[in-house]
Amino acid sequence: MSKGKLIGVGVGPGDPELLTIKAGKILSEVSVICAPRSAPKKPSIALSIVQPTLSNRKDDYETLEPVFPMTEDKKSLEKHWDQAADMVAIHLENGDDVAFVTLGDPSIFSTFSYLQKRILEKGYDVEMVPGITSFTGCASTAGIPLVEKDEILVIVPKIDHRLENILDDGDTFVIMKTSRHGDLLEKTIDADSRNKEIISVQNCTMDNEEVVQGFVKNKKYLSTTLVKFSRD
Amino acid sequence: MSKGKLIGVGVGPGDPELLTIKAGKILSEVSVICAPRSAPKKPSIALSIVQPTLSNRKDDYETLEPVFPMTEDKKSLEKHWDQAADMVAIHLENGDDVAFVTLGDPSIFSTFSYLQKRILEKGYDVEMVPGITSFTGCASTAGIPLVEKDEILVIVPKIDHRLENILDDGDTFVIMKTSRHGDLLEKTIDADSRNKEIISVQNCTMDNEEVVQGFVKNKKYLSTTLVKFSRD
Repeated sequence: MSKGKLIGVGVGPGDPELLTIKAGKILSEVSVICAPRSAPKKPSIALSIVQPTLSNRKDDYETLEPVFPMTEDKKSLEKHWDQAADMVAIHLENGDDVAFVTLGDPSIFSTFSYLQKRILEKGYDVEMVPGITSFTGCASTAGIPLVEKDEILVIVPKIDHRLENILDDGDTFVIMKTSRHGDLLEKTIDADSRNKEIISVQNCTMDNEEVVQGFVKNKKYLSTTLVKFSRD
Repeated sequence: MSKGKLIGVGVGPGDPELLTIKAGKILSEVSVICAPRSAPKKPSIALSIVQPTLSNRKDDYETLEPVFPMTEDKKSLEKHWDQAADMVAIHLENGDDVAFVTLGDPSIFSTFSYLQKRILEKGYDVEMVPGITSFTGCASTAGIPLVEKDEILVIVPKIDHRLENILDDGDTFVIMKTSRHGDLLEKTIDADSRNKEIISVQNCTMDNEEVVQGFVKNKKYLSTTLVKFSRD
């Protein structure tokens, strides 16, 4: 019997219609869906995005929901990832494909990469299906181009001295999860004397989406800030 | 009669199945499809990607194919964009929505932004529908994560002194259209002593897709190079 493969499926930023046709097909056919959740009682956001697709299925499929706690403790994280990989491998060994659903795109700051590494090490095949990234979702919501012509785009997941170093040579900066480091972000960006446009988007393309001109002070998890510097 | 709106629709890197469900719906319903082509006899790549969706339509729709020549002559480009905006505005004024199809995503180095600006200036509404960007398409094809944890991602459309300036503080670099500036790219990246993984993808997710370890020397238009530096 041939072995199953792991498929990392990007489900986009929130709107179920931002799933690709390819992702929709895979999620309609695959035997096992694996969706991460941050705590045993917290529903998986990625799973909720694909729920309309799954609800249309007439056949049986299994859902795995491994817990990946919101911790920076590397040992604890690795233990949870190892457990998830074991959980997935049982199905692959049985010849079933497993689709791991992940917010946005599987190559951009995705928990998928940790599972991918372990499953490859176990000798199984892995595939990736790209998804709409949160930052292009935010740009569409805000109705602005991120970059044109020879402008440089920089995606920053955490504010530290590096942002200051590269600020001069970049044109547009996407700052992810801004609630984690709002004050330092504001200070760093304000120190740049160029004209700039600043837009923050929270819960992009979801029902509770909010678009704010400037920075945001609240602590919402899915917060992205776009900073566009003018060239003249 | 209410006015129509312009909708910038990202159609992804090439595979028609990488269209989103939302994009598919719009392209099945809108009265007018506008697709750019680079010369009068050259077919529009974006239009070819959505052809399977359009072929399923039973109703009538109109296709506009303005020519945007491959030139750096700003005056000539502006003239062509003005003409395209006039062409589109006639339909908007008549109350018809116009979907402008664009490779990848409408906010990332898209010709859509020039049309968007002009249509907004004429007082019409504009919407954007995000698409799969070429670089996440390339990462999926290559089967590698682009960024994890607090790594910084930099998207570079043109190689010059700026790349050298920001190299130290970035982890992963996506170099677009590498055929334009291959030698300088190779020299700049080779000068960095960190361990690195270099993968080039041409015609990503298309029938003639090619994946190459390292840099590419040929002059194919749709060429992207991913450079991932190791942290240790």
